[in-house]
Amino acid sequence: MMLERFGHGGDWHTAADLFGEREQWLDFSANMNPLGPPPHVHEALRSAWQTITRYPDPAVRELREKLASHHGISPDNILVGNGAAECIDLAMRVLKPRRLGLVRPAFSEYEEAAAKLGCELHEVYLKTENSFVLEEDLAVRLSDCCDTVILGHPNNPTGQLIPGASLRILLSSGSKLIIDEAFLDFSQEEETLSLIPEAARREGLIVIRSMTKFYAIPGLRLGYAVADAALIREMQKLQVPWSVNAMAQAAGIAALEDSEYAARTKQWLADERPWLTQALKGLGLTVYSGMPNYILFALPEDSPWTAASLQQALGRKGILIRDASHFRGLTNKFVRCAVRDRKDNEVLIVEMRKLLAAHP
Amino acid sequence: MMLERFGHGGDWHTAADLFGEREQWLDFSANMNPLGPPPHVHEALRSAWQTITRYPDPAVRELREKLASHHGISPDNILVGNGAAECIDLAMRVLKPRRLGLVRPAFSEYEEAAAKLGCELHEVYLKTENSFVLEEDLAVRLSDCCDTVILGHPNNPTGQLIPGASLRILLSSGSKLIIDEAFLDFSQEEETLSLIPEAARREGLIVIRSMTKFYAIPGLRLGYAVADAALIREMQKLQVPWSVNAMAQAAGIAALEDSEYAARTKQWLADERPWLTQALKGLGLTVYSGMPNYILFALPEDSPWTAASLQQALGRKGILIRDASHFRGLTNKFVRCAVRDRKDNEVLIVEMRKLLAAHP
Repeated sequence: MMLERFGHGGDWHTAADLFGEREQWLDFSANMNPLGPPPHVHEALRSAWQTITRYPDPAVRELREKLASHHGISPDNILVGNGAAECIDLAMRVLKPRRLGLVRPAFSEYEEAAAKLGCELHEVYLKTENSFVLEEDLAVRLSDCCDTVILGHPNNPTGQLIPGASLRILLSSGSKLIIDEAFLDFSQEEETLSLIPEAARREGLIVIRSMTKFYAIPGLRLGYAVADAALIREMQKLQVPWSVNAMAQAAGIAALEDSEYAARTKQWLADERPWLTQALKGLGLTVYSGMPNYILFALPEDSPWTAASLQQALGRKGILIRDASHFRGLTNKFVRCAVRDRKDNEVLIVEMRKLLAAHP
Repeated sequence: MMLERFGHGGDWHTAADLFGEREQWLDFSANMNPLGPPPHVHEALRSAWQTITRYPDPAVRELREKLASHHGISPDNILVGNGAAECIDLAMRVLKPRRLGLVRPAFSEYEEAAAKLGCELHEVYLKTENSFVLEEDLAVRLSDCCDTVILGHPNNPTGQLIPGASLRILLSSGSKLIIDEAFLDFSQEEETLSLIPEAARREGLIVIRSMTKFYAIPGLRLGYAVADAALIREMQKLQVPWSVNAMAQAAGIAALEDSEYAARTKQWLADERPWLTQALKGLGLTVYSGMPNYILFALPEDSPWTAASLQQALGRKGILIRDASHFRGLTNKFVRCAVRDRKDNEVLIVEMRKLLAAHP
């Protein structure tokens, strides 16, 4: 059995099956903000759990209005979902791709949502030697071959943003586009980089956002999609009633009020990502550049260690990392780890240094 | 604008738009257990809200095991969903009816889930003069005409259980069957009446359960489906990852431990339903018999009141009832109200008596 038994990180239940029960794991396998949840959200939840005796607002009115004013768009352009996962699922179901373009490696939910529709996949492999950047020729190939393209911005697990030139090629092509910005809110350039204003204005572009990573509330499930109003209405029709639970709505409303937390998070990542990158490089690892709160790195080809054996050895010490070889397009040497706070990152580096100096 | 703007009761947001803001509504429009949430669930949630910084168990392992042992079936026969609404949606998507049989009146989600699939509906009208009982000839018509039949057991809004003879006709026909037992846990005969053991054993029968009405936690979203293991696996494949949030899982686990609460609830309903029925009859209303924690009644044909005008007048006093004329098959005289505790039920009766003595 592997830690990614259900295809994702952060599965402490499986971790306990594999490595024994623990009160607490040092979890680098899920990409959560270590500063969260923000105090506002904490406060909101402390009282909101008592509102669960009532149905959630089926139209998620207050949160949609807050999100709309946050992004300077209309609430009619916003659908709130039971996690970004539901938004991806609904986006696929309304766009109904016949041939869906995606890159390798990429977040596994894209192909899983596509598989439910039985649509054809067109896969383009990002090149290791180009640091997994989506170059223009690849963007042309995707838009030429596919009626719909889905991409992470940044990509998960590589961490790379889509270069502006490639984005322009995709946007000016006839293909419909789903852009997953689940981690873009961690960027200090979020506003410049986001396609949300574009998605509210034009047809055939859906932007997906998650609120659970940045605000560290994955247990509640909260994400949203931005698109033109007609497409949003179609997605709403397919959505299960009361899909977004009451606590998630309350947390989302409170989260948007805490701009200090947002600034602090962006600053933490701007400081800590370079530190962890350097420290991993110092262990002789190949570290891929990128923007978000996780880092992709590779063990040396001639190392006796693989991502799987490193995950096992760290797991036994209570530290969880992501074996990234499960992402198609990556070899068994690739690992993804979250950026956490300095103390935790130091523990990871110290333990990895000890392990890598020995044999698996 | 009507209170059932989004097709359901319990919408306090719309109530505020219609009748003005209030701290608290006396809500007979949603069918919640007034005794809940149970102390165990209260306790569990008081601490569980802190676990939202972690992903929910994607496979809902602990709750599925608890439910399995509660019903004496295998966890492989159980899918836990983001409310019964998601279970209905998934049941429809795996059974893929070409022609779906349903009765009128019935819970509106059935036809909405069917509409998403674009399948044909075959509607059979329950007769007012037969107290909306599903008689054998109607069961024959449903199973003769349809590859799939969906029925509430008990029906919502009529409150009627499916008679044993009609059930046997449906089960022995070649049609696939979805039985919605969302309110059956309120019955003292639950174990005898439930089709859950049957659903775990045979193909083509899916039973849907809700945990949010009985345990009064609709804000969290929690339901489950029981069917043969192969069908459950198909439903799981279509389900959005982490669909069931962490607090709902924690609440469900705690709920099943509180058998004292369950017994107390069943006893409360056995006492209170007859009381409210008699009191409504005392107001000159036609009250339909039935099992669950809600009651369907009709205003006299010659009354100047309609369900809509009564809802308006009570709404202005802070009391919410369900205008049941929105259920196809019922006239504008039909009202559905939840059974609440004696004090609340008395308020409803007193206020209705005053109103009905005057003109709208």
